[in-house]
Amino acid sequence: MLVLGVDPGAGATGYGIVARSDGLLQAVDYGSIITTPRDSFPSRLQQIFSRLAELIHRYQPEWAAIESLIFAKNAQSAFKLGQVRGVAILAAAQSGLAIAEYTPLQIKSAVTGYGAAGKGQVQQMVQSLLDLKEPIRSTDAADALAVAICHHHSARLLHLLKGGER
Amino acid sequence: MLVLGVDPGAGATGYGIVARSDGLLQAVDYGSIITTPRDSFPSRLQQIFSRLAELIHRYQPEWAAIESLIFAKNAQSAFKLGQVRGVAILAAAQSGLAIAEYTPLQIKSAVTGYGAAGKGQVQQMVQSLLDLKEPIRSTDAADALAVAICHHHSARLLHLLKGGER
Repeated sequence: MLVLGVDPGAGATGYGIVARSDGLLQAVDYGSIITTPRDSFPSRLQQIFSRLAELIHRYQPEWAAIESLIFAKNAQSAFKLGQVRGVAILAAAQSGLAIAEYTPLQIKSAVTGYGAAGKGQVQQMVQSLLDLKEPIRSTDAADALAVAICHHHSARLLHLLKGGER
Repeated sequence: MLVLGVDPGAGATGYGIVARSDGLLQAVDYGSIITTPRDSFPSRLQQIFSRLAELIHRYQPEWAAIESLIFAKNAQSAFKLGQVRGVAILAAAQSGLAIAEYTPLQIKSAVTGYGAAGKGQVQQMVQSLLDLKEPIRSTDAADALAVAICHHHSARLLHLLKGGER
């Protein structure tokens, strides 16, 4: 199963594609979609939408996983983040992906075992769980990989609950 | 010139298409895109996106006009509204429309001459400015028509400032 994790942001939208094979999680691709404030906001939304659509087309994940709730400083920044998230969800939905949402608590618990873990801990655990040689430089990419890992864990749990073997 | 005004909302997204011919403003079409909470949120975003894309395809407006700032009760509702607005902006941008943003103050001033006008006053003035026989039932549609009228007014002003005749 291939999962695309997305961490929407106005400046940088993280993405991470995580596969499970033989019970092991593996990072297929990850990075950040960076847009510049010099471009108009509609153009930045288009760039995020088309880059995500490209990634989905290339890797054909079955699932998109995304944070359900974003802690924003204020209504204005929540509003801005919301616009990017709307476009990210649309990119996944238009490509026929199933979409799963997880709270920050679920995501942190899934990767670190601890709901109040910091950014640095999440980054380190993601690196370790995916057996990456190098630290993940972008926190957006690390957060996107984390939500994809979270979905793999809960999908596995669901499978176990239903009496599957793995 | 044909302008599509959009008033994004989680439950109902208003739209209004306003033409100017011979110096008179005319409502070409208006209404609400209603989605139901029984559908998943990604599916609701898709419905809003595809209905707006259909309207743009049918009427071929040159401009989309949208509120720049939405007063939300809290960060959570701003976040939800933002997602709908992101998808609305994307629909316009993907169809190659130019996009203009106006603050609530600019919109209310443009239609009522008074920045603190209430919903009812906006509805009445929109009906009067567009010479509609019947009251506009949906406040979302009235707000969408209002932002389209606002764009016509400021486009006309710009034209006048540049030395145009009308």
